[in-house]
Amino acid sequence: MDPSKITIPPMMDLTDSNITSNVNIINSQSPNKRLQYLITTLVTHLHDFARETRLTSEEWMAAIQFLTAVGQKCDDIRQEFILLSDTLGLSVLVDGMNHPKPPGATEGTVLGPFHTHDAQHFEIGEDICSPGKGEPMLVLCTVKDTAGKPLEGVTVDVWETDDTGHYDTQYPGRTTPDCRGVLESNDEGFWFKCVKPVPYPIPSDGPVGKMLSALHRHCYRPAHLHFKFKKAGYDELVTALYPRGDPYETSDAVFGVKSSLIVDIETLSDSTMAEKYSMKVGDHLLKWDFVLTTDMESEELKNRLAKQALETLGSTAKLENGVPVASE
Amino acid sequence: MDPSKITIPPMMDLTDSNITSNVNIINSQSPNKRLQYLITTLVTHLHDFARETRLTSEEWMAAIQFLTAVGQKCDDIRQEFILLSDTLGLSVLVDGMNHPKPPGATEGTVLGPFHTHDAQHFEIGEDICSPGKGEPMLVLCTVKDTAGKPLEGVTVDVWETDDTGHYDTQYPGRTTPDCRGVLESNDEGFWFKCVKPVPYPIPSDGPVGKMLSALHRHCYRPAHLHFKFKKAGYDELVTALYPRGDPYETSDAVFGVKSSLIVDIETLSDSTMAEKYSMKVGDHLLKWDFVLTTDMESEELKNRLAKQALETLGSTAKLENGVPVASE
Repeated sequence: MDPSKITIPPMMDLTDSNITSNVNIINSQSPNKRLQYLITTLVTHLHDFARETRLTSEEWMAAIQFLTAVGQKCDDIRQEFILLSDTLGLSVLVDGMNHPKPPGATEGTVLGPFHTHDAQHFEIGEDICSPGKGEPMLVLCTVKDTAGKPLEGVTVDVWETDDTGHYDTQYPGRTTPDCRGVLESNDEGFWFKCVKPVPYPIPSDGPVGKMLSALHRHCYRPAHLHFKFKKAGYDELVTALYPRGDPYETSDAVFGVKSSLIVDIETLSDSTMAEKYSMKVGDHLLKWDFVLTTDMESEELKNRLAKQALETLGSTAKLENGVPVASE
Repeated sequence: MDPSKITIPPMMDLTDSNITSNVNIINSQSPNKRLQYLITTLVTHLHDFARETRLTSEEWMAAIQFLTAVGQKCDDIRQEFILLSDTLGLSVLVDGMNHPKPPGATEGTVLGPFHTHDAQHFEIGEDICSPGKGEPMLVLCTVKDTAGKPLEGVTVDVWETDDTGHYDTQYPGRTTPDCRGVLESNDEGFWFKCVKPVPYPIPSDGPVGKMLSALHRHCYRPAHLHFKFKKAGYDELVTALYPRGDPYETSDAVFGVKSSLIVDIETLSDSTMAEKYSMKVGDHLLKWDFVLTTDMESEELKNRLAKQALETLGSTAKLENGVPVASE
């Protein structure tokens, strides 16, 4: 809709049958066609939700209070709205659409609310956990492109809980980061020491915890080790590895598990190898080969899938930069 | 779905095409069938919104930050989520579904975020505004049922801004309520003194103001005087009266205007009348007849409209207490 041609109709006597089209007209005055598409789609779904459920005034007020509580639970280190998005399956959906992977590339999964930007930088081989944080684990990785070429200079962000299932940020009085670190790959990949991950409950002392409890859902995530890979020219990869056989492997509270990301944790049995990496025989060993896609591969795939998806939905919206926008 | 029969499928490898059905299954374990209906409908619309817009990771993060800011703008006297609901047309939609009025009854409109529970009680005839709050206005009202019988003992909550367009709660350091009051009707109705309402901007210094600005929308409401009527056995009426000819009459930022609620403000020209009500000739005069519906009339109408609306939507959901619930 050309903004210069928008005629706002007299907005009076709005009822459940005419409110949506009127709100959509008044929201169509910005020249930003993407914003217009987003807000129109949002308002239509929001109103349809209320109409289909015949939402009561009491439920509406409960929703207002719930969302307010979610917002007020957030602070510098806790993000309850991300937790809400995670537990409603929105995060994994958005991540999947934005970072589709061609066959052979490492799949992505949810970032979660515990990534921080203050992790320390470590040299290859260092331990990202302070002593006493859990059972020692050696992690040996390669990182390559889809053609099998090793990628040097990839920034690798790693984070996990300690063996009580808590991230450093969940401890009051945290002063320095722990059980997290940033490394840089060389032509052989990267390796570091950490602790064997354990399953843990997502924070359940806030409104999202109350919601899960009302829905009779458990709040556990299977054990996992988070990774984020960044290198110019390559699609950012946010992923995690899940040790096989976890009790919550098939019922992750945030829907993050992918079968291609389930790993077998081995036991270091070779004393020469243990010595080489300054580990002990009997310690845990995790080996993994990561494969990144280029920005170009990822963009091409994303755009193709967006086009296909909109066709499947029967949408005739125009795509700009790979996303649908409002028509003129 | 009978909770005892729910088999949670292995939740792995969730993609944009299978995430919704899986989230809906895991959310179907509560015996509360209404909650199940609400959450299933919500998740389906939320996911469809993301799929139809191909929501980007950056837009998702902007939404997380926006909702967090909305929650954090709320305090004891400011409710930014209600403002968001109002400006997206949700409030008027929910109110209309929950309080439908038969012909002849006074229509309802949005409560808005400025109603408080600390308003003082006034005797009939008193002034609900402290001196200097605006141009004096006398308000003479009757309140009857749909059969025309006067209703005594109705609790009437009234609130408005001063002539600068601010509610008392918008002033820092507010200690006592002003420009608001609670009265009780007698067999002649009720009357009180206040100030002539003026148009005003809704609070635009928060995230909702930023949203309106991004959407190229103004943030004004036409002048109005809020009313809330309560009496046992009668449907609570939340409404407002809008003086005719306001510049924002047809473009209310929160979509609250109804033509049946537009009033003509007169001028007190009769000195006997002015004297009777301790007003001055030339002061403003507002006369209105309110008509309340009984709980029974309202429930019957609400249920009938809910049934009709679901039929129109093609929904086969079972209604319980007038709202659809998940099937067994």
